[in-house]
Amino acid sequence: MKPLATTTPEGGPMIIDIHAHYTSAPPELNAFRGRQVSEMNRPTKGRLRISDEEIEKSLQGHFRQMRDRGIDKLIFSPRASGMGHEVGSELVSRYWTEVNNDLIDRVCKLYPDKLIPGCQLPQSPGVSPKNCVEELERCVKELGFVSCNINPDVSGGGQPFTPSMGSEWWYPLYEKMVELDVPGMIHASSTVNPGLHVNGSHYVNQDSAAAFELCYSRVFDDFPTLKLIIPHGGGAVPFQFNRYRAMHTSGNRRPFEVVVKHLYFDLAIYDRDSMEMVVRKLGVDNVMFASEMFGTAQPVDPKTGKCFDDTVEWVKGMDWLTDEERGKLFEGNARKVFSRARF
Amino acid sequence: MKPLATTTPEGGPMIIDIHAHYTSAPPELNAFRGRQVSEMNRPTKGRLRISDEEIEKSLQGHFRQMRDRGIDKLIFSPRASGMGHEVGSELVSRYWTEVNNDLIDRVCKLYPDKLIPGCQLPQSPGVSPKNCVEELERCVKELGFVSCNINPDVSGGGQPFTPSMGSEWWYPLYEKMVELDVPGMIHASSTVNPGLHVNGSHYVNQDSAAAFELCYSRVFDDFPTLKLIIPHGGGAVPFQFNRYRAMHTSGNRRPFEVVVKHLYFDLAIYDRDSMEMVVRKLGVDNVMFASEMFGTAQPVDPKTGKCFDDTVEWVKGMDWLTDEERGKLFEGNARKVFSRARF
Repeated sequence: MKPLATTTPEGGPMIIDIHAHYTSAPPELNAFRGRQVSEMNRPTKGRLRISDEEIEKSLQGHFRQMRDRGIDKLIFSPRASGMGHEVGSELVSRYWTEVNNDLIDRVCKLYPDKLIPGCQLPQSPGVSPKNCVEELERCVKELGFVSCNINPDVSGGGQPFTPSMGSEWWYPLYEKMVELDVPGMIHASSTVNPGLHVNGSHYVNQDSAAAFELCYSRVFDDFPTLKLIIPHGGGAVPFQFNRYRAMHTSGNRRPFEVVVKHLYFDLAIYDRDSMEMVVRKLGVDNVMFASEMFGTAQPVDPKTGKCFDDTVEWVKGMDWLTDEERGKLFEGNARKVFSRARF
Repeated sequence: MKPLATTTPEGGPMIIDIHAHYTSAPPELNAFRGRQVSEMNRPTKGRLRISDEEIEKSLQGHFRQMRDRGIDKLIFSPRASGMGHEVGSELVSRYWTEVNNDLIDRVCKLYPDKLIPGCQLPQSPGVSPKNCVEELERCVKELGFVSCNINPDVSGGGQPFTPSMGSEWWYPLYEKMVELDVPGMIHASSTVNPGLHVNGSHYVNQDSAAAFELCYSRVFDDFPTLKLIIPHGGGAVPFQFNRYRAMHTSGNRRPFEVVVKHLYFDLAIYDRDSMEMVVRKLGVDNVMFASEMFGTAQPVDPKTGKCFDDTVEWVKGMDWLTDEERGKLFEGNARKVFSRARF
C-alpha cells in the first residue's frame, strides 16, 4: 500500500520540499512573542491580529520561488530558531507553541495546494516530553498536521541539560508519534551558549549529535517503525560515516550502516558533491529533497549568480540515478514518510 | 625559507602523523588523576612513578603501527578526553597539565626519532587564557614542544560557558602563539552534557563550531600569522562548505573560502571519499595527514578486515594529485606549520 510517485503535467515527479519554515511571518507574530516575554511571570495566550492579506503578502517570496524552481509542495512549519523552548516556563512554551501552530494551520488551509503543515511542540527544559502528546494529537487529529519538529536540545545548551535523543526520557513522545504514524524532524532552536552561532554552529552540530545518539541507542529496537528525519544533509553524518561505523564496532552495537537506515535525511545542504554524498552514503530510500525555504542559504552565490539554495537542478542532474530513484528523492520517499499528507 | 619536503630512503616523502595522543599511557597516570580528583580541595602536584620500561611497553602499539604503515613521525600530545579542564579549580588543571606535559616531554626525549611533543594547556572554566601563557612558554622554550592543543569548550558545555573562539577573550593566548610561532590544534576534551557522547558527538561538533566561529570573526584580521588546526577532517566544514559561504555572504564577511585558508585541517577522517573532499575543498596547502593514533577509529572494519584508521594508502592513492602535492599532505605542510620541529 505504499503510495507510488506520481508524475506532474510536465512528466517529471512532483517536487516536494520537506523542510520549509514560516520565516517570513508578519511582524505581529514576533510582536506577540515580545509582549509574551515581557510578561513571563503571568503567561496569557492572547490572539494574533493578522489579516489574510498580510498572510498572502508574506508568502509571495515562497510562491515565487516555488514557481521559478518547479517546487510543488512545502512541508511548512514554524520558524525553527523562533521556537525558543528555553525561554520561560512550560506554560509560556505551550502558549507560544499553540499560537504558532494555529497560525501554520490557518496559512496552510488558505493555500492547501502548496503548503502542508508541520507543528512545533511545547517542549520545555526539564519537562518530560509527555507534555507534547496533547498538542501533537490536537495538531494531527483536529487540524490535519502531518509531522512535528523536535528540538533535541530543549534548553539550548543551558540548564537543565536535555537527555540524549537515545534516552527513554523521549519515549512518551516516540510512542505517540508511532501511534499517529507521524514523522518528526529533529530541528534545534536557539542556543544560550555564546560560543555557538545558531545557524553556523548549533544547528548542524545538533543534527550530527541526534543521529549518532539515536543510532547508538536502543530506540530503533524499541520503536522499529518510528520515523525521524535529520535535516541539513545530516549535519556531519555522511561525511564522518566510518567514524560512526568504528564506534559501533568498538561499542558492540549493530552496524551503524544498518541502524542508520531507520533514519531519514534531507538534502538541505548546498554543495553539489555533498548532496551526492548524502544520497550515496544513506541510500535513495532514506533521503528527501529540501532547500529550507527560506533559510541560511537564501543569498545569491557571488560565484554563480544563483542562490545557494537553488539546488533542484543538481538533484535532477544526478545522472547515476534512475528516473525512479530521483522520483523517490523528490516525491516517493516523502509520500512514504509523511503518510498522513494528501499531496 | 620554507622547508621543502624531503624524501625517505624508499623515495617517497616522510610520513608525519600530526595527530597522535598518548592514549596508552601506563595506568599510574590515571591513578594520579584519580587521587587528585579525590583531594580537589587541597591540590598538590605530586610525582608520577613510571619507569622507562613501562613507557617502552606502553608505546609498542604505536611503534608497531608506525612500522607497518610506514609512518615516520608522530606529533604526540596528552590524551584529549583526559585533559578534563572542567574538573576542579585552576590549580587542579595546572598541576594535571604540568604532570601530563612532563610525561610527554620524557616520552618524546626517550624516542626523539619518532615522537615530537605537543602540550596541553592549563585551561579552566571562566579563567582567562592568559593563564596558559606561562605553561606554553615553559613547554616550548624549556622543553622543546612544537605545538599546543586548545580546548575550545573549556567547561565541556557546563557553566560558565566558554566564549567563542572568535572572541577577544582568547587573544592573550593567540598573541603568545604568534610570538613563539607555535601552532594550536583545536581539540575538545570531555563534556558534562549527558546528551552528547564525547567521541561520537562532542569532538566533531566542536571542530565544526571552532572553524566557523574563527572564520566569522576578526581573529585572522588581527592575527594573520596565527596557525590553528581543525582536526577530524574539519568536523562538518568541508561537507557544509556552501552553508558557511552563504552565511559569510549574508553577514557581509570576507568570503568564507578566502578566510578559511588561514586554517589548517587534518585528515583524521576515515572515509576515502571524505578525505578526498577535505583536500578538494580546503586545498593541498592547508591539509595534513593524520590518523589519530590511537583514537576512535582503531577497530578493524569488519567489511575490509583492515583498521578503520589505516588510511595512508588512500592518500598515496590520490592519483589526481602530483607527487609534490601528496608530499605536502604527508610532510611539507607539517614542516611549514610545526616550524619549530626538527623532523
